[in-house]
Formats: sequence, C-alpha cells, structure tokens
Amino acid sequence: MRTTVGIIGAGPAGLLLARLLHNAGIDSVVLEGRDRAYVEQRQRAGILEQGTVDVLRAAGAGERMDREGLRHDGIELRHDRKRHRVDFPALTGGRSVMVYAQTEVCKDLIALQLKEGGPLLFGAEALAVEGADTDSPRVRFRQEGHEGNDDVLECDYVVGCDGSWGVARKAIPAELVQVFERTYPFGWLGILADVAPSHDELVYARHDRGFALLSMRSPSVSRLYLQVPEGTDAEEWSDDEIWAELERRFETADGWRLERGPITQKSVTPMRSYVHEPMRHGRLFLAGDAAHIVPPTGAKGLNLAVGDVVTFAKALTHQKDTGSAELLDAYSETCLRRVWQAERFSYDMTTLLHRAPDATPFEDRLQVARLERLATSTAAETDLAEGYTGFPFE
Amino acid sequence: MRTTVGIIGAGPAGLLLARLLHNAGIDSVVLEGRDRAYVEQRQRAGILEQGTVDVLRAAGAGERMDREGLRHDGIELRHDRKRHRVDFPALTGGRSVMVYAQTEVCKDLIALQLKEGGPLLFGAEALAVEGADTDSPRVRFRQEGHEGNDDVLECDYVVGCDGSWGVARKAIPAELVQVFERTYPFGWLGILADVAPSHDELVYARHDRGFALLSMRSPSVSRLYLQVPEGTDAEEWSDDEIWAELERRFETADGWRLERGPITQKSVTPMRSYVHEPMRHGRLFLAGDAAHIVPPTGAKGLNLAVGDVVTFAKALTHQKDTGSAELLDAYSETCLRRVWQAERFSYDMTTLLHRAPDATPFEDRLQVARLERLATSTAAETDLAEGYTGFPFE
Repeated sequence: MRTTVGIIGAGPAGLLLARLLHNAGIDSVVLEGRDRAYVEQRQRAGILEQGTVDVLRAAGAGERMDREGLRHDGIELRHDRKRHRVDFPALTGGRSVMVYAQTEVCKDLIALQLKEGGPLLFGAEALAVEGADTDSPRVRFRQEGHEGNDDVLECDYVVGCDGSWGVARKAIPAELVQVFERTYPFGWLGILADVAPSHDELVYARHDRGFALLSMRSPSVSRLYLQVPEGTDAEEWSDDEIWAELERRFETADGWRLERGPITQKSVTPMRSYVHEPMRHGRLFLAGDAAHIVPPTGAKGLNLAVGDVVTFAKALTHQKDTGSAELLDAYSETCLRRVWQAERFSYDMTTLLHRAPDATPFEDRLQVARLERLATSTAAETDLAEGYTGFPFE
Repeated sequence: MRTTVGIIGAGPAGLLLARLLHNAGIDSVVLEGRDRAYVEQRQRAGILEQGTVDVLRAAGAGERMDREGLRHDGIELRHDRKRHRVDFPALTGGRSVMVYAQTEVCKDLIALQLKEGGPLLFGAEALAVEGADTDSPRVRFRQEGHEGNDDVLECDYVVGCDGSWGVARKAIPAELVQVFERTYPFGWLGILADVAPSHDELVYARHDRGFALLSMRSPSVSRLYLQVPEGTDAEEWSDDEIWAELERRFETADGWRLERGPITQKSVTPMRSYVHEPMRHGRLFLAGDAAHIVPPTGAKGLNLAVGDVVTFAKALTHQKDTGSAELLDAYSETCLRRVWQAERFSYDMTTLLHRAPDATPFEDRLQVARLERLATSTAAETDLAEGYTGFPFE
C-alpha cells in the first residue's frame, strides 16, 4: 500500500489533516487502531477556538457545527461568591468560541472522509514508523483479522496523530529529543448530566475547597467538573456528594442556583503539561497529543492539534506548489511557538483557579489578587480573552 | 509631649506623612531612632511611580526631583540575546516613572520638615506603642543621651512607619494578625559604580545563569544587580567577576556593550514577600515596610509606602473635615487592595526573570514563553506597564 501522506490516528488531528490534504489535492491514508464506534464516542474536549471554527468551516466540515454548536461570547470567573464575566468579542475585536464536542467533530469528519476522502482504515493498528529520516518512510501496521500478517504503508511523509501513547514519536532517536513536563497534584472529576446547563456560558470557579467548572454539551446536557486529589477514583463520589460539592464551589452572593439532574457519566481526568521537542524528524511529523499535552483548564488540547495539522497542510501544499521545503523544514519551530503559548496559558489558567494541596496563605491571596486584577483591568482581561479564543495558526 | 499624629520612623513613609499632614493643617511628631546622616545615606529604592511623583509634587517636595530626577518612559526586557522595549506612556495613556533615589527623597523631605514642619526627632528610638485600642494611644521612646529616662508621646493616632523590624506592629495582638509570607531562594548582589549607565532606561535580563538588572542613580552613576544564591556574601565576588557576569547576562545579538567603571559599593539584598493583616488596630496604623515587603524586582516598596500614607492623610483629613471616621475605618482594606496588587506584580516580575535553583526545563520554557508573549501582545505588555507605573492610590 502506498500514499503521499500516511496519517496515524483518526482523532480530530488525523481526520482533519486527511480532509485538508484532500481539499489540496494530496492523497493520504489514515490508520486507526480502534473501531469507528470507539472514536465517535470517547468523551474529550468541547471548546473550539475561533481559529478552529474557521478552519472547520473552510474545510467544508462546519455545517452541523454551525447548526448545533453553541457560540459562546464569554466565560464567567467566580471567586469569594463574586462573579465576573469576560466578554470575548468586546476584548478581541469580535472573536468567540464554539461549544461543540470533539466526538461530534470526529463524526462529521469521518462521514466526510468515508464519502469523498481517501482510505480511512479502522482496526488498523500502527506498530512502528520506519525510515523516518529517508525519502520513503513506512508505517508498519496490523489490520484486525490479519494478525501475524503485518502490512506496510509506504509514504512520502508520515504524520503521527496517534496521541501521547502512540508509536510515532518513538521513531525519533532519543538523543535528539527533549521532553518538558509538569504534573499537577490534582485531577478533574467530570460528569455528564441530563439537565439544562444552569448558566449559558462556562463558569470557572476558584474556591478554597478547589476548582469547579460548569460547561455543557448541548442545551439539555450539562458537563461539570470538580477538582479532586490526584489518584481519586470517580466511584468514591456519590451523585449527591458531587452535586453538593458543586453547589458549594459555585455559590454566589446573588443567589445563583445550580440545577441538578441525572448523572449519566462520571470519570477522573489527570492533569499534565507535556511538550516533546522537536515535533519533526526527517519526514515524520508529530501533531496533537503525540507532541504535547495541556491540562484541560484552558480548553486548548483539541485546538492545538488543529493548529498543528493546519501548519503541516499549508507547508506541504507550499512544497507541492513551489517545490520549496522551507515551511516543512520550519514545521517544528512554527508549531512550538504556538504550543508554548498554549502551554503557558493552560498553566496560568490552571494555577489561577486550582488550589494546590500544599498552597500557602500567600499563594491563596495571590490567586485572589489575580482574579481581582482580571475584574478591574481591561489589559489583563484582554490578555486572557486573546489566549482563550486562541493563538494564531501560522 | 503630645501631638495629633505620632509618626514612628523617618523613612520616606513617615517623612512624607508628616509633610502631607502639615499641608492639611494637622500636627505631628516624627520619632526616628537613627541619626540624620544615616537616614540620608542608606541605599534603598530608586524608582518613583507616576502616582508617587504626582504626590511629591503636590506636597511641595518635587522641586529637586524634577530638576535632578530622570524621567523614564520605558524599560527593556532581555532574554536569549533579544531585546524588547516596553513603552509606558504609549501603553498607559501617558504614565511614566522617575529615577530618583530614596535617599534624595528623604533629604528633600527632611529639609522641608526642619524648615517648616513639626518636630522631627532623630536619635529618638520608639520602644513601644501603648493603648492602641484606646482614644489616647502613646508611644514610649528613648532619646539619645536620656537613657534610663523614657519619654512618652501622647497622640490621637499613631502611624507605624518603622519598617519590618519596628515596634509598631508588635502592639497589634497576635490573635488578630495574619501574616502572609514567601521567601525566594536567591538574592541580589547590587553594586554602585562610577560610570555612566550603559543604557538610558532600566534593563531587566532573564538569563540561564540568572537575572540581571541595569539601573542608575544619576547620569554618571550606574546601579547594577546580579541574581545570586540566597546567603551569598558580597565579598565572595571580585569586581572583575561581577563585571564579567553582568556582561554575560546582558549580552545581546546586536552587540550592545556594558561599560565598566570603579565599583564604590557592593551589597547583597535578600528577597522576600510579606504582608501583615490587618494594617490597623484601633488608633494605630501601619504604613510601608512595617506592614508589607516586596521583592525589589517590581520597584514597588517605596511606592507602596507612599500609597499607604496618602490613604491615611486623606482619611484623617476627611475625619477632620466631616467628623466621619469612615475612611479611617476602611484604611486597612483600602491599602490592602493596592498592596496585594503590588505583591502580585512583584511576585510575577520576580518569577518571570529569576532562575530558581531547582527550575525544571518546563519552567524555563514557560519563562521564555511569557517573555515572548510580552514581546508580541499589546494586552500583556499593557498589563505589565500598568503595574510598573503603579496601581492607583485611593
């Protein structure tokens, strides 16, 4: 089997890349180890930056998003029972975000790919990338039902969109790699609940008992999160305990009420910052979680993946059109500029709002001072709004 | 001896307060344990915020400052051999800062006080504040040459401007006090050198070997600082070693040169954040270092002291004019809003630019991402410029 671009992973990065390349007249094959149902159901991010929305629309994948997604023009910050709204369009010259779940983005892109794109193989598990530093890299993979009989995908380029546990990045020699990492001593207990969101925009709450986030999947499904100690098992928390704790952390002086409803899903997400440098080796390119992880506080993970594949598609198109590999050669540096801004933003949002188990009284007051600053300085608020609505794709 | 306001300490806070009260027709007595020469010579801060400049002028203490001080419209940030200037007036609607040493401010205020103000007693060491929660607080003190024969200053109000080791705050019952503190695992090795400053504005440099700051006292005297490990003895560093290290940390890609000159003074400053809450107990008020310490990176210490005494003078004048103690009662909360913004700003400037001995590669990259953000986002730059030129006095 042979193609121009071998794409490992049918998450949003791999699927969108296949779409962008298809639109540019470049053929690709997508290999995905899981089956279609799994990919279409795993709960992940749900906030699309302005730039991501624009890219999906331009790629012809924005129709259902524009119909069913919820455009959000701001978020609310809470602390000490006080509320402050950050108005994105007013601060950023019209930018906003869209609430539209990653699962839905994947469904839309899969449908498009199967209808008019190149091969998208589910149950095709990549085993290794070989010859990354040659002109003809290969992906060795195994298709379900063909065990003991590995296949090979011969490519001009390989893009690893296979997440933080994927095989792609293992093909970069360890001596060329530098890893940057931070773990956080807490995680998120997230729930899906069949109840209309109690607020029409996301609410980020800083509380002495820990962070809480109110989000939503649709006008009738709430997505809520509680900061919990690292290593917490979701089953330790009863539904009643979860709601009672959410009520405490979201409490306001003006009597805002959190509506309860049946909890349909409950899970704990760990928090990690991670960057793998470089993001390219020869003809192997890493995109999305394969190269970087952010804690979810800034809603940046999916959007970073989109930025990476936009950069790659643009660079390869440039190479095809002009013969110059200049942009491909700059791929890692170009992406990492944006990646580090998103890492910084995600770290800052996380440390602004979460209470570390060993937080000192001085650090508690610093957090409150930062939140007070955001509520009183247009400059500080604009800095946050620019970061939240997204750093420019290059 | 009796007065309306007993002021402990003839640093900039105490001296300016005496001046502001004098101008408002309120009498005061200033007690200072040291002699005049000491107060006029101890090297401290040198950057006056816009608000401080305005207050000194309005108080009639700005004449020599306006003649000899150096107005600065920006600072330079350096990292990775790159330079970025932050333009204060452009970002803040015309605000700037003034380089004019604390010693000079003190000299001007002492001269004014001795010429036309109330008593200013040097060599008068405050021993204790008594009756802070009564209507007639007293300061017990001892005058040089009167050992064994304590004096008492009877007051309507006592303001402790006696620094972080003073007696004033000891008069607040421990059970009412909360202290917020942070120490840093580094200090500043500071030098004065008889050489024209190599740059006409302050230069803040982030370097893998540590922070460096280029400042000045006058057109012919440079003030330079190097981040050194906590507990460093200034004598460990030879003059040549200091200059060589400064050159390394300030190095730029465009060949900027640091001029050397004779070092006339050398000392190490520790770095600490500290806030004492509340700043008032009954008729005792704390101002300046007696209530809070900031690391020197943001040049906020002197300016915070000025803000405190401005708030006190305004509150007492209000009480005198209207009979209402409302502003006096709000003194602590009013000051602490500003104090915590300055603590936040000073902490952020410090952690932006200093290299912690246990810094991880992730934290190093975060610092660089913050500096890159400042160089590319007007919002982020404005946030910094607003903080540097000063939070509003209330």
